[in-house]
Amino acid sequence: MNMLNLIDKKKRNKSLTEEEIQYMINKYTNDEIPDYQMSSMLMAILINGMNKDETSWLTKSIVESGDVIDLSSIEGFKVDKHSTGGIGDKISLLVAPILASLNIPIAKMSGRGLGITGGTVDKLESIQGFNVELTSDQFIKQVNEHKIAIVGQSGNLTPADKKLYALRDVTGTVDSIPLIASSIMSKKIASGADGIVLDVKCGKGAFMKDLNHATELASTMISIGESLGRKVSVVITDMNQPLGHNIGNKLEVAEAHDFLKNYKDSEQGLLEVTIAISSKMYQLATGVSEDEAQQQVVETLTNGAALEKFKEFITAQGGDASDINPKDTKHTIEVKAVKGGYINLIDAELIGMASLLVGAGRLTKADTLDFDAGVKLVSLTGQEVQKGDTLAILYSNKDDVAESIKLIEEAYKIIEDEPVKNNSILKIM
Amino acid sequence: MNMLNLIDKKKRNKSLTEEEIQYMINKYTNDEIPDYQMSSMLMAILINGMNKDETSWLTKSIVESGDVIDLSSIEGFKVDKHSTGGIGDKISLLVAPILASLNIPIAKMSGRGLGITGGTVDKLESIQGFNVELTSDQFIKQVNEHKIAIVGQSGNLTPADKKLYALRDVTGTVDSIPLIASSIMSKKIASGADGIVLDVKCGKGAFMKDLNHATELASTMISIGESLGRKVSVVITDMNQPLGHNIGNKLEVAEAHDFLKNYKDSEQGLLEVTIAISSKMYQLATGVSEDEAQQQVVETLTNGAALEKFKEFITAQGGDASDINPKDTKHTIEVKAVKGGYINLIDAELIGMASLLVGAGRLTKADTLDFDAGVKLVSLTGQEVQKGDTLAILYSNKDDVAESIKLIEEAYKIIEDEPVKNNSILKIM
Repeated sequence: MNMLNLIDKKKRNKSLTEEEIQYMINKYTNDEIPDYQMSSMLMAILINGMNKDETSWLTKSIVESGDVIDLSSIEGFKVDKHSTGGIGDKISLLVAPILASLNIPIAKMSGRGLGITGGTVDKLESIQGFNVELTSDQFIKQVNEHKIAIVGQSGNLTPADKKLYALRDVTGTVDSIPLIASSIMSKKIASGADGIVLDVKCGKGAFMKDLNHATELASTMISIGESLGRKVSVVITDMNQPLGHNIGNKLEVAEAHDFLKNYKDSEQGLLEVTIAISSKMYQLATGVSEDEAQQQVVETLTNGAALEKFKEFITAQGGDASDINPKDTKHTIEVKAVKGGYINLIDAELIGMASLLVGAGRLTKADTLDFDAGVKLVSLTGQEVQKGDTLAILYSNKDDVAESIKLIEEAYKIIEDEPVKNNSILKIM
Repeated sequence: MNMLNLIDKKKRNKSLTEEEIQYMINKYTNDEIPDYQMSSMLMAILINGMNKDETSWLTKSIVESGDVIDLSSIEGFKVDKHSTGGIGDKISLLVAPILASLNIPIAKMSGRGLGITGGTVDKLESIQGFNVELTSDQFIKQVNEHKIAIVGQSGNLTPADKKLYALRDVTGTVDSIPLIASSIMSKKIASGADGIVLDVKCGKGAFMKDLNHATELASTMISIGESLGRKVSVVITDMNQPLGHNIGNKLEVAEAHDFLKNYKDSEQGLLEVTIAISSKMYQLATGVSEDEAQQQVVETLTNGAALEKFKEFITAQGGDASDINPKDTKHTIEVKAVKGGYINLIDAELIGMASLLVGAGRLTKADTLDFDAGVKLVSLTGQEVQKGDTLAILYSNKDDVAESIKLIEEAYKIIEDEPVKNNSILKIM
């Protein structure tokens, strides 16, 4: 077996065997296959595709390239969630305490933010004292005691994915459904979950531009889960604006807290997506009906148990549960509408970039974050605005905010006619 | 403009512009585009193809990546030839003196052999005293005086092709018609030819396995020639055995000499291909009819002018024109038929490998050649043989010849029924 033969098969649109995929991933992880060979293979996969078996084998090989977290000493069905990438996506901060308050163990590893995408671990670290670096023993003990722990990634999980992702990023081979699906699923499987609920974003502001592609990605991930013995559900959600009002680390903690305190007042999209994902997670873990699951989720929000669990979680992990609001920033700038009309779309990428530039995100891994910086969207998609109305508020400790203001103005697509309102939940699979 | 955008276009099956292709080739030649990006582009080109314009622009960009030989101080129409790779292919040794004897200037750069493929320059160097390293002035002076000179490649011709070829070789992106066509045509155009006759090999023993693919490659190269102002003709020839009887450097010089001395006794395929290519070259250079061209070629062979020119050429370039036969080798092994039947095919690659192993070829550029070593095919395709008949003779100064003998035995495909005889010339375009 050698890599040239495998490239040859894939470029002729033939299927690779499990052994061939294992060989390729194993050798590539060990630097025995050069990048220039893997990149021609990735392009052949991007154009010719992979069947369901190949995609599952690829996922399995990536999982086996590194450590696999063993959560067997945690009682109960461990359910995890993943989003394909949203701006202002604080869903993990919400569903984790919701599920834990319903007695479903949440033993979650999360990432840090890079570029315009935020990371749950950064958001949690914006809380005074919060410790995201538990030992394996501390992590498991906390989940068994409190049903909830969220830590940063430790150990050597899916090194093949890290190498492949870095290469895909610079070789035009990112947008391939089998490659995206195997990347996401390998990380979740290596993290030890028994069941996974995936939030697949769809629409102009997302990677999957239409429902057909989103559905294809979803069914590919469900099929990977099936063949590797994991329960998988997918919620396809609309991405016509960032999730909720707040973008920025502490700003999102505050929004999550407010949501748990009084979910009825929260932004509609955030509410619908949170309930849909929490319910699906509860369903996977318990096997109850969709209605029953949703009822439980609403109940734990209504009776304050989820909020209590949120505070208990912060305290258990060393955080100050009263430190949930950002400090005032040096500058607070209201960005106004330059014309009147209806907001048709708020481009999440541009908002993410505006937020990054004031210090809420990192351009490189070495950058430090300003936890209090960010953007609050005052006017949301579908809303009518007059010229001069406040669209958003920019919070910055930096003096140079001109670019961020411009990005926010650009992000708001204002049209004359009232747009058709999209549902937040496009499909549940 | 950046490489990722170009990869993106090509992977979506969109056409690249002339500026984009120039940018890509220029940056890649200057090491400003990494191999891993070029290899994903090459795979996208291999799978999605390139239209005629793109292929011409690619060729032009490769030509412009390095020096272009200026043959303008040589009088007359300069015509060159190229073969897509044959074993025992001594056609250049034949057509060059044939054309020169008809007063058509041949100013030819040739390569050295590598792997199983021989090189004209190596074959000429097997003649005592022959000098393949003329200065540019000596080269042009000799062509103006004698109408013929063949030298090794000098200068920095098509560096982009060298880099691309090396990368294609290790990334599974060799077998792409636009990439093959632009590679061949760029080298010929950079060598200064006004007209080019291409010998495209076709069949089991060749890179192009069937006439459709060979025709596609041919018409692609003709179209490149048209758009870059060069006259191009193609002769598609059958490759069901190596060309002629002899494989090996001095062995091929001897066969070429014998051909020019008495062409009627030469192997039928070698004769037909030599006459077809010489005639096409003469036609391109003079514009006469096909019949007239062929008549001239046969005439110069019959009256001995081509043989005289061959000797004059060797002498002009410092060689001993009487040194045309190989010296006896330490071992002369007759390889016998292990069963009776008809020879259906002589696998050229295996014969090339047998010849390489006894020292007639190089495994690496640093290897030295044994000019006298090689293989003489005694029995040819279509012939009936009895068990024990001599198939071929192996000439070796090495003692370890077991592998070569095995390869020769394997190369001869002997079947029970008389095979249909293929024409040597499949198509002229």
